[in-house]
Amino acid sequence: MLHRPPAAPTPPMGWNSWDCYGAGITEKDLLANAAYLRDHLKEYGWQYVVCDIQWYEPRAVDTDYNNFTPLCMDEYSRLIPAENRFPSAAGGKGFSVIAEQIHAMGLKFGVHLLRGIPRQAVHSGAKTVTGVLAKDIAAQYSVCPWNTDMYGVDADKPGAREYYESVFALFAEWGVDYVKVDDIANTEFLKDDPYSAAKEIELMRDAIDKCGRTMVLSLSPGPAPIAHARHLSANADLWRMSGDFWDSRDKLIEMFRLCEKWYAFVGDGKWPDCDMLPVGRLMVTHRKLGSHYTRFTRDEQITMMNLWCIFRSPLMIGAELRDNDDFTLSLLTNPEVLAVNQRSTRPVPVRCEPDEAVWQNAMEDGSPVVALFNLTESERTVSVTLRELGLTGTCALRDLWRHETVGTTSDNTPIAVTLPPTGSVMYRLESMG
Amino acid sequence: MLHRPPAAPTPPMGWNSWDCYGAGITEKDLLANAAYLRDHLKEYGWQYVVCDIQWYEPRAVDTDYNNFTPLCMDEYSRLIPAENRFPSAAGGKGFSVIAEQIHAMGLKFGVHLLRGIPRQAVHSGAKTVTGVLAKDIAAQYSVCPWNTDMYGVDADKPGAREYYESVFALFAEWGVDYVKVDDIANTEFLKDDPYSAAKEIELMRDAIDKCGRTMVLSLSPGPAPIAHARHLSANADLWRMSGDFWDSRDKLIEMFRLCEKWYAFVGDGKWPDCDMLPVGRLMVTHRKLGSHYTRFTRDEQITMMNLWCIFRSPLMIGAELRDNDDFTLSLLTNPEVLAVNQRSTRPVPVRCEPDEAVWQNAMEDGSPVVALFNLTESERTVSVTLRELGLTGTCALRDLWRHETVGTTSDNTPIAVTLPPTGSVMYRLESMG
Amino acid sequence: MLHRPPAAPTPPMGWNSWDCYGAGITEKDLLANAAYLRDHLKEYGWQYVVCDIQWYEPRAVDTDYNNFTPLCMDEYSRLIPAENRFPSAAGGKGFSVIAEQIHAMGLKFGVHLLRGIPRQAVHSGAKTVTGVLAKDIAAQYSVCPWNTDMYGVDADKPGAREYYESVFALFAEWGVDYVKVDDIANTEFLKDDPYSAAKEIELMRDAIDKCGRTMVLSLSPGPAPIAHARHLSANADLWRMSGDFWDSRDKLIEMFRLCEKWYAFVGDGKWPDCDMLPVGRLMVTHRKLGSHYTRFTRDEQITMMNLWCIFRSPLMIGAELRDNDDFTLSLLTNPEVLAVNQRSTRPVPVRCEPDEAVWQNAMEDGSPVVALFNLTESERTVSVTLRELGLTGTCALRDLWRHETVGTTSDNTPIAVTLPPTGSVMYRLESMG
Amino acid sequence: MLHRPPAAPTPPMGWNSWDCYGAGITEKDLLANAAYLRDHLKEYGWQYVVCDIQWYEPRAVDTDYNNFTPLCMDEYSRLIPAENRFPSAAGGKGFSVIAEQIHAMGLKFGVHLLRGIPRQAVHSGAKTVTGVLAKDIAAQYSVCPWNTDMYGVDADKPGAREYYESVFALFAEWGVDYVKVDDIANTEFLKDDPYSAAKEIELMRDAIDKCGRTMVLSLSPGPAPIAHARHLSANADLWRMSGDFWDSRDKLIEMFRLCEKWYAFVGDGKWPDCDMLPVGRLMVTHRKLGSHYTRFTRDEQITMMNLWCIFRSPLMIGAELRDNDDFTLSLLTNPEVLAVNQRSTRPVPVRCEPDEAVWQNAMEDGSPVVALFNLTESERTVSVTLRELGLTGTCALRDLWRHETVGTTSDNTPIAVTLPPTGSVMYRLESMG
Repeated sequence: MLHRPPAAPTPPMGWNSWDCYGAGITEKDLLANAAYLRDHLKEYGWQYVVCDIQWYEPRAVDTDYNNFTPLCMDEYSRLIPAENRFPSAAGGKGFSVIAEQIHAMGLKFGVHLLRGIPRQAVHSGAKTVTGVLAKDIAAQYSVCPWNTDMYGVDADKPGAREYYESVFALFAEWGVDYVKVDDIANTEFLKDDPYSAAKEIELMRDAIDKCGRTMVLSLSPGPAPIAHARHLSANADLWRMSGDFWDSRDKLIEMFRLCEKWYAFVGDGKWPDCDMLPVGRLMVTHRKLGSHYTRFTRDEQITMMNLWCIFRSPLMIGAELRDNDDFTLSLLTNPEVLAVNQRSTRPVPVRCEPDEAVWQNAMEDGSPVVALFNLTESERTVSVTLRELGLTGTCALRDLWRHETVGTTSDNTPIAVTLPPTGSVMYRLESMG
Repeated sequence: MLHRPPAAPTPPMGWNSWDCYGAGITEKDLLANAAYLRDHLKEYGWQYVVCDIQWYEPRAVDTDYNNFTPLCMDEYSRLIPAENRFPSAAGGKGFSVIAEQIHAMGLKFGVHLLRGIPRQAVHSGAKTVTGVLAKDIAAQYSVCPWNTDMYGVDADKPGAREYYESVFALFAEWGVDYVKVDDIANTEFLKDDPYSAAKEIELMRDAIDKCGRTMVLSLSPGPAPIAHARHLSANADLWRMSGDFWDSRDKLIEMFRLCEKWYAFVGDGKWPDCDMLPVGRLMVTHRKLGSHYTRFTRDEQITMMNLWCIFRSPLMIGAELRDNDDFTLSLLTNPEVLAVNQRSTRPVPVRCEPDEAVWQNAMEDGSPVVALFNLTESERTVSVTLRELGLTGTCALRDLWRHETVGTTSDNTPIAVTLPPTGSVMYRLESMG
Repeated sequence: MLHRPPAAPTPPMGWNSWDCYGAGITEKDLLANAAYLRDHLKEYGWQYVVCDIQWYEPRAVDTDYNNFTPLCMDEYSRLIPAENRFPSAAGGKGFSVIAEQIHAMGLKFGVHLLRGIPRQAVHSGAKTVTGVLAKDIAAQYSVCPWNTDMYGVDADKPGAREYYESVFALFAEWGVDYVKVDDIANTEFLKDDPYSAAKEIELMRDAIDKCGRTMVLSLSPGPAPIAHARHLSANADLWRMSGDFWDSRDKLIEMFRLCEKWYAFVGDGKWPDCDMLPVGRLMVTHRKLGSHYTRFTRDEQITMMNLWCIFRSPLMIGAELRDNDDFTLSLLTNPEVLAVNQRSTRPVPVRCEPDEAVWQNAMEDGSPVVALFNLTESERTVSVTLRELGLTGTCALRDLWRHETVGTTSDNTPIAVTLPPTGSVMYRLESMG
Repeated sequence: MLHRPPAAPTPPMGWNSWDCYGAGITEKDLLANAAYLRDHLKEYGWQYVVCDIQWYEPRAVDTDYNNFTPLCMDEYSRLIPAENRFPSAAGGKGFSVIAEQIHAMGLKFGVHLLRGIPRQAVHSGAKTVTGVLAKDIAAQYSVCPWNTDMYGVDADKPGAREYYESVFALFAEWGVDYVKVDDIANTEFLKDDPYSAAKEIELMRDAIDKCGRTMVLSLSPGPAPIAHARHLSANADLWRMSGDFWDSRDKLIEMFRLCEKWYAFVGDGKWPDCDMLPVGRLMVTHRKLGSHYTRFTRDEQITMMNLWCIFRSPLMIGAELRDNDDFTLSLLTNPEVLAVNQRSTRPVPVRCEPDEAVWQNAMEDGSPVVALFNLTESERTVSVTLRELGLTGTCALRDLWRHETVGTTSDNTPIAVTLPPTGSVMYRLESMG
């Protein structure tokens, strides 16, 4: 007897088009970022290339949605890529040509999916795969609060299950490896129930199990309700703990609170998700705002990497990779830090205070890792004792960003470090007996 | 200087088509009930004839809605009567012929309106009165939880105000005297806010003030949130305190709790609404359930009338009036009881307990009225002292259902009466010095 | 038959020792303030002289309480005045000598009472009037969150009712006219129930009804839970809507929100209470903070008076009256403004916005009163139309602070006035036809 | 460098006096039960003997508390055993003689502690170890809702830390191995905060770390708030998930819901606690109710053991052990079932439905364990597939209660078993390749 491997045995690492292209990514830019990933990042473990929302919307450009706009759809009420943006989709090929190219790079391909069935299908009398009309499986009361494309699906209606199966079967046919489903992990269409889409999650879980291809299932947006942690863990591989994360210090600080809530659910192929890394050049095509380089300071970016890695969050890069500067690239290619994300065990919040935090983990070989965080906007000394870490003895502190030993600690000598505003360190503790 | 009279100086009394015809009332049945009202009830104060929901839906039959079904609409995205059901609407006459006939009977005419703009208009590219597209004033995230006809209107969008003005101007043109707006007094399309439609209520208030015709504004469904009592009172004439009321003992008992919450807001032309009176023959055309005569016992019906009247609730009859039996008619034509509803001052809950209730009011001439209620399913003696009523002296008890004096009370002799299960009495206290 | 008059047919007006003396008022200062009331304020309607908390605590000085300190108590576990502070209480006379003197001035006398029975009685084995031990009626789980003097009383225990009766009988014997009961209108000793003391309120109501003397019953602290408005109204004469009110602009602004919630419960001898007027010299004896003159600007004080009066709140002066300056005295002796408080009908909130408010009332003769409030910290023009006030015609605006007509208004000419920061006006509308 | 071992590396197993003796256990009965533990249970892993609440109350007999009753206390306001109940405490020996005897049996000794400082000390002017008066560290607003012995301690007051240190130092001196602190894991003395005692928990944690003796720290009562899981885990060894658990089917069913919430926090020496096992003879000395044998059916008892063991709950026996019948003893001495509790890894809730549940765990050697539960009151077949368990292949099902192989399962053959009302099975899966 064997244990079945989970679809994501370690936290997924990759690139997603949202932060730089919003709803408007094109085939050309997608493949160019994939090529960058292959050339500069793959060797460090980065592997997923994810095409985010509205690849079926011909007029989409950036993070603003066009309300009630025509969508590209096949005869079974399934969305298909807009050919003006994804030319290889012509002739009914969908994403299969793109998937093939990405696989040829040694990478994996992901797509975004909005929960539900197109409103366009419902109001135009379209059919689904079983012949049931789209309007007869639509849950009319279930609409996404921020996008007009879909109605939710009433999971109890005849034809609902088969509809979702037909969607994932099409993804499998295309060669999709990862699906980021949206408007699903927090969607309060039933009064006071932010987890109203539970049955649709189950239908998707079953559809993936049945589709004949391994696919990672990622659920958005957050905050996913922690009261449903078991259901999330049983049905998905990763799920968002927060609303959309962007390059704002407040959101970074808030993530510490969320990690404190969720830490016990990390591991065994299940990954509460801190959301994308808004580093490098972002919002490249934004009509109103223009693009900008991340507003995070370098210390904030390192603090973000330290938290995401010691917590074992999925890591999805937001940058237009071709515009990376040296610092951004260095941030994403530190093997000692990424090892904490990929080859540690379980995160433990040792201290969670408004002004400072200490997190602990252990590598697979048992060696402890500890990160100390300054959550204030001033310099601050943060310290922790071996007793607080449940340890005893003497050990060297290996700084995982400086790649060198920076001191020792023992029962009588706490770890103490003076950190810049919103700064942090991450150490591996190496026993000296 | 004069005080402007409110649109409903006393609680509105009338008949509404919902309880007997659901969404499927026709011109013929509407006018037949109006004629009954004229012949048997008008002299007791009953005056409104209200045509409830989906008069624009050609296929509607009963309380079940057809999802995503075609609606009758004019060129400005306004709903108009379905001619197959309301033949006099032919030739663009809308409800004007019916209104005229009802006015000729000495009665007033009311219609139902669902908050928003038809989804059919939004998805078919229709215009509104200002030329703005329906899709550009639709609040896409705002859908009714139980009916697919409309999207809410985003009150901040250009053209939103004019759209609602155009709807009420059409009603004024038709001769409408009363509008029951639905999906508005409790509609949680914004998270945790059951009063999300406040701005649409204000637009409707302004539209009525501007339309050149006096119209009573009634808001549904309940429970309207009491935290917004002031806003309701400032903008509407009546509003629902409860979810849909039907002939169920549990709902009747629950109404005592709701009256206890809302009593202070009764009066000065403002009427928290206990909802319709489900008496007589109900659900006449129901496809699945068939019709039934009210399931309330006679004692329960009297208890309902006593509460609705001493509380000064609006009174809207649910019965197919032509099928009234003698008891039902007698219930609706007791002048002493209806006088409490129309010519008393303010209700006071003297005792509100799980098992019994005592309510008090005073007629315009100052004479006290008291009702004693048994809320249990067994016989029970309920009593109250003059001290509890804030009174002193000696007085006769006039039973408003038996139309005779049934005893006296004084400082030393409480009012005490043995009541059948869910039974009640209502007395006017006549001073004996 | 007669209607029994309520204990407080109009909002009570008087002086209370808390704002100037905290828990430390003495007989001398109490009587000196009473004399000032007699000489300068009585003719304007001010009549109650209320001795606030801990008159039984020998060491009390200001608003800080001594924890677990010895209290003066009689043989039935009832608190009695500390003789070092109230010398006339010697020889078991309690407050009777003081009450007599105050009555002789043509004024009325009030005392404070903390809900419950002294912990000192419970832990020392003391008896109550029936012989039942104090510890056997104490509700051990019920303690005041801010003072250690008492345990709550378990209303269901034998002897509980008699204990409260004995307390109010003693007050009646002394000649008390007004009781401010504390730790009762909002006291969450039962989980999630801020109205846990409901049964003790009922015992006190009954005890007053039985004591043979008319006493006004005032309940503190706030916020009293509006869900229990009926119970408050049935059992007390006034009750606090807010936490302790002091001379802070934020608290003044918050009071507009609270009045908006509570307005419907005002009238018929029942008075939701905005709390004391922190004007003049305050905190006279404070050990740590010293005394100060009110921090309110003159405009804020007028705004406070306008709100308290048009809302018909009880009016209790907080000042050490002997230190009043001319402005303070003028504030308290404006007959036209006080008439709105004493001889109007019911308050109506016409507009309640973050930045401005308009309130309306009508004098007993029907003449409308309107107050316009600027709630911002800048100058602001506030206006209201006759339509919004439910009026029509033409009328003169009498400014109740300037005592003159300042303009007219009509259907086409709204009332509009430019107000200083946190400023307001109050007008009586006099018909010109 | 070494990892410090947790105080409770596996879920604590033992006996506690509450279920059979309430607050009234005596030295004689305590030692008699300890002797039984030594003779019949120790070899199966049972080791703790815990003396529950009010060992300092001379008049305590059963689960009813005497309110405001005299307590035994030393000169530093610390509680000491009542000599009439624990004669060996005479001469200031406290629990040291009893601890010694229990240690001599090869067992460990635990005591109960109510959070806070005796009210008797506060009201009698008693001192604490530093000379600070008891009344000056008491948090007057913090009282236990169900017992009058203590006031909470205000952790910020000088002398508070030292007071708690003195209490645990005394326990260390006596030889205490386990402390069950009560009124602490859920105690809402601050409004809306069921975890108001967080600072006192920290003081106790520090006091134990400093006392020089390993002590297990158990927190009661439940429900401990899951929002504070991290704090509980960082400071205590076990904590209650539920209110008091007794032999009621409803409470047993409810425990499945609680385990579903808490499972992720089980392991690494931290134990969310299902509470005591109410088996055998209970409430031996109850004045009003008399004693009774557990009301659980045998199936319910097995279901309880299966859940407690696969979830890895602490196991504390409630029975008067000397009255055990054969079935009760057999329930507590099944080595295969107890091995799941002591030597598995982490519990996983595979299915959590109102009518049935499936839980999974894995032994330290990796072999899977699965328990299937019928939560209805009728016979019911429950099944689970290997896919749902994340497994594949073929394996034998070893029934841990029947001690034999009862079938096999494979990818195509689900585990399916027909269970009696509230019945369950627990299987270890043994690979057949």
